[in-house]
Amino acid sequence: MLREAIYHRPKQNWAYAYDNKTVHLRVRTKRGEADEACVIAGDKYAWKQTRDVVPMKLLASDELFDYWEAEVVPPLRRLKYGFCFRSGDERLYMSEKGFSPVEPDNYLTLFEFPFLNPADVFVPPAWVKDAVFYQIFPERFANGDPSLNPEGTLPWGGAPTPTNFFGGDLQGVLERLDHLSALGVNAIYFNPLFEATTNHKYDTKDYLKVDPRFGTNEKLKELVDACHARGIRVMLDAVFNHSGKEFPPFVDVLEKGAESPYAGWFHVRDFPLRVENRVPTYDTFGFEPIMPKLNTENAEVKRYLLDVARYWIEEVGIDGWRLDVANEVDHAFWRELRAVVKGLNPEAYILGEIWHDSISWLQGDQFDAVMNYPVTEAALDFFARGKTGPAQFADVIGSQLAAYPRQAAEAAFNLLGSHDTPRLLTVCGGDERRVKLATLFQLTYPGAACIYYGDEVGMAGGGDPDCRGCMVWETDKQNRELFAFFAAAIRLRQDHEALRSAGFRFLAADGGLLAYERLATDGSERFVVAMNVSERPIDAVLPVDPEDRRTPDPTAAWSPIFGDAPAEADGGLLKAKLPPFGYCVWRRQTIFTTPATLL
Amino acid sequence: MLREAIYHRPKQNWAYAYDNKTVHLRVRTKRGEADEACVIAGDKYAWKQTRDVVPMKLLASDELFDYWEAEVVPPLRRLKYGFCFRSGDERLYMSEKGFSPVEPDNYLTLFEFPFLNPADVFVPPAWVKDAVFYQIFPERFANGDPSLNPEGTLPWGGAPTPTNFFGGDLQGVLERLDHLSALGVNAIYFNPLFEATTNHKYDTKDYLKVDPRFGTNEKLKELVDACHARGIRVMLDAVFNHSGKEFPPFVDVLEKGAESPYAGWFHVRDFPLRVENRVPTYDTFGFEPIMPKLNTENAEVKRYLLDVARYWIEEVGIDGWRLDVANEVDHAFWRELRAVVKGLNPEAYILGEIWHDSISWLQGDQFDAVMNYPVTEAALDFFARGKTGPAQFADVIGSQLAAYPRQAAEAAFNLLGSHDTPRLLTVCGGDERRVKLATLFQLTYPGAACIYYGDEVGMAGGGDPDCRGCMVWETDKQNRELFAFFAAAIRLRQDHEALRSAGFRFLAADGGLLAYERLATDGSERFVVAMNVSERPIDAVLPVDPEDRRTPDPTAAWSPIFGDAPAEADGGLLKAKLPPFGYCVWRRQTIFTTPATLL
Repeated sequence: MLREAIYHRPKQNWAYAYDNKTVHLRVRTKRGEADEACVIAGDKYAWKQTRDVVPMKLLASDELFDYWEAEVVPPLRRLKYGFCFRSGDERLYMSEKGFSPVEPDNYLTLFEFPFLNPADVFVPPAWVKDAVFYQIFPERFANGDPSLNPEGTLPWGGAPTPTNFFGGDLQGVLERLDHLSALGVNAIYFNPLFEATTNHKYDTKDYLKVDPRFGTNEKLKELVDACHARGIRVMLDAVFNHSGKEFPPFVDVLEKGAESPYAGWFHVRDFPLRVENRVPTYDTFGFEPIMPKLNTENAEVKRYLLDVARYWIEEVGIDGWRLDVANEVDHAFWRELRAVVKGLNPEAYILGEIWHDSISWLQGDQFDAVMNYPVTEAALDFFARGKTGPAQFADVIGSQLAAYPRQAAEAAFNLLGSHDTPRLLTVCGGDERRVKLATLFQLTYPGAACIYYGDEVGMAGGGDPDCRGCMVWETDKQNRELFAFFAAAIRLRQDHEALRSAGFRFLAADGGLLAYERLATDGSERFVVAMNVSERPIDAVLPVDPEDRRTPDPTAAWSPIFGDAPAEADGGLLKAKLPPFGYCVWRRQTIFTTPATLL
Repeated sequence: MLREAIYHRPKQNWAYAYDNKTVHLRVRTKRGEADEACVIAGDKYAWKQTRDVVPMKLLASDELFDYWEAEVVPPLRRLKYGFCFRSGDERLYMSEKGFSPVEPDNYLTLFEFPFLNPADVFVPPAWVKDAVFYQIFPERFANGDPSLNPEGTLPWGGAPTPTNFFGGDLQGVLERLDHLSALGVNAIYFNPLFEATTNHKYDTKDYLKVDPRFGTNEKLKELVDACHARGIRVMLDAVFNHSGKEFPPFVDVLEKGAESPYAGWFHVRDFPLRVENRVPTYDTFGFEPIMPKLNTENAEVKRYLLDVARYWIEEVGIDGWRLDVANEVDHAFWRELRAVVKGLNPEAYILGEIWHDSISWLQGDQFDAVMNYPVTEAALDFFARGKTGPAQFADVIGSQLAAYPRQAAEAAFNLLGSHDTPRLLTVCGGDERRVKLATLFQLTYPGAACIYYGDEVGMAGGGDPDCRGCMVWETDKQNRELFAFFAAAIRLRQDHEALRSAGFRFLAADGGLLAYERLATDGSERFVVAMNVSERPIDAVLPVDPEDRRTPDPTAAWSPIFGDAPAEADGGLLKAKLPPFGYCVWRRQTIFTTPATLL
């Protein structure tokens, strides 16, 4: 076996507590090489009495590797463990000290998960995995109170530019909640609402005040209450990496330079603050002079921002914070933020904007999740752009499923577009069929889903500012058929826990066909989703039952329940005549006496 | 190139801030495969203007891998980066998304070190890398005040058992400080001093009181002051994982069960507290009923223990805490402890007792170092037990050097034995020559060294309790020649920063010969250490100068300065006729205009 391919290191995604009793252990091997993998585990203080061998299951695969996982419940919460692999007749053992063809005689050389301390367990809010978010860019969603229109407000529906205004506000959102309920979403992610000069409000002037063009703090409270009454949670955007140019402490430093009592609130390389050769003499977001980076190591800044986080939870009752440019702020600050936020509301969702590998933020001490752009990119390359095929897509998804602890996958924030990217329909080249497949995938994949406002009615738009157009409210200009699809797919997801659970496994990823199986956490229900991501019809035939070694309830059977193709279930074979970009979802309800697992 | 062997993941030991300006990037490749490696790095907000290619240097190698390292100083503290490898004519690029034969056209797919925030920089105390510790097991070091002898105290020098007492105390230590000064150590690590029932005191009764058999809090203050006056720092043992059976809160829970106000201070699985089938109904250290595990998630326990940590720093002025069974306590508690300790004394050393891979504790938010048992074991297997040869030893050391950030290697706590292991001389089968080589290695290796009391005068002893014998004070029973060797080797280390720096590279690891080079941080001095770890004489010939591409000062030349073998330096060749278990150290002082690096 290829020893160089085998990797494990305690903590991160490789060995972590899933809950207060259970440790997940993972290891990778060269793809296709190991026939079996198992964990040798026990309590180091009573090794002989407790040593056990636990088979591992194949969690996922990517281009180069297979990823194996085992669940272990150490009775006294202490775990010493190693791995054993079999490839044909070859056996290989792995301890912390390396490899050997026989089991290491000294168990003290094995890996260690020394103690499962609940304080270190990563516990995202339970509701998140059941959430379908709707992202609202407030200036462009609905204008409910023209009296608040900023000067120069343009007629609704004009072309968005980086600087123009159309008068969207909170009253507008309040009046359009029926649209959200009809769509079926149960959470809102608001782009920034606090007072700022731009239309996107990422340049905060006053962190404790709703922008007067949007409404008042009281109006936000009214809106949040109205949402809660409908079972819709509300997450706000926390722009703590940087402030805006009119933020009073920054104004003071601009004026007084090093003499300002707020000089330590920013990262100033040279006074007076200025821009030289397009580079500000103080740290900023990117090179944007109106977005000065806040010094989150400064005790006053920390206190101020933590108070902001506290204020909106206590006063308005928000359900979560999305943290802008989360990767550029120090980990120490995020740890303090988590303590404050969870202290006030243990169910609050803490979501970081990070576009790259985020394992360092997903260990339980900082974020509950990140904006899952790697999955976004993979989905767009495959479903929307047609740049990759099913096998490549499955490889990236496999890699992602293995990259984080299971609870991170369950609480991930899966999006297909945002205010920072071209709109889904546009990336799909205007092809609604591709929009539907991407959306069906999003809504049948583990993690929270987020719909960017207007995508559900067929809005198009290129990159910023084009993706920030005014919401289309005239029914005759909306794509109602697409809306119906979104609503039905959301309904499907909401009705079946299996489509939100972590139980996910690819069944086919070949030619134009992608198919995967989903399993309810309690094993009571399974689904198969098949999609034809090609221009040629596909006769899909998917064997399923042989994988299920339990005896099914004789009355239970697979049946197609969602799709646009003739489909049937024939014993252990699911069949569908998928037209180009066609799809089908089968369901089977079974009553098991023991929990099933796809692993 | 073998893609499966190549590994990098941001943070941990692979990408970390070394100081407030410098990021270290590391990657591994299959051993012997890559001829070159380099980093492609830049600022993601100005990629074209800032993109740079930085060659990597070979940091270390182990059995399977080469480890490469580069230092990068991103001007605006933001870093996007990828890797490029060359093997013969083959080139391979690595981004976060995988491998490609050409440079990825989208730099956004590269890895990211988003921002170098000082709050997240791992900064161990600067003094630690210059420290030689002396570990004192107080009950067995010196009896200076017989009036404190516990009942049944035995005559000094008797056979140690798990339960007997010989009357060692703080007055004894105070009177023997000249011994420490003569040896040349500049720090003491004390096993527990607080009131407890056992002779080892790992079962604390009162965390705020020196054990009356050892003295008083005032006596400890007197001792610490006396040490400080000699330039000796003092580290105490913090047993925060568990208390003792006479700890009043535990006594209360024993008596009152679930009704006790202290019930939440421990992890009780079933009341009343009892032992069934040798397993306590409450969590303990191991299965030891007299060591109940403290619930460090309980707010009162946290406050209590953090107050203990604070008390001894404030009242007595200690310089560090060694944390017993550190791996079984929650990370959250250790983060709070670090904040408290560093808040009082930023130069305090926080040392965790962890025997296995410790990367999760060495990220800057928890410990400064761990007891470096993996190096201990490697050194004992090679120098003491003769179980491994130089090549295997070099592989383990290479693996260790690559496993942690550089500052962790610099602040590591390197020991060759402790109160928990058989004594060095005994592991060496009584062979002093092996003791010397192991000690010379320890004292010329990066990281703090710790001498276990008595090893320097030739004390022998098997595992606990045999390794906890009474210190031999009669000069005629001490091995004074061994003491002189220890003192000289310590002196050598203390006189030359090069022997304490991170600059370390193996020159030979073959047959019985081990040789390595050491380089001062400022490049002003280099050393070569050669050892014959075999029973056969070796004519060692080590080429050195060809490695040094700078022009040396013509007056500077290599010369042997420490050893037991005829040695010379002949231009670029160092030569020594090493007898069995012989050793030689050469030195060269050079004046460079630019800092040198062994990397």
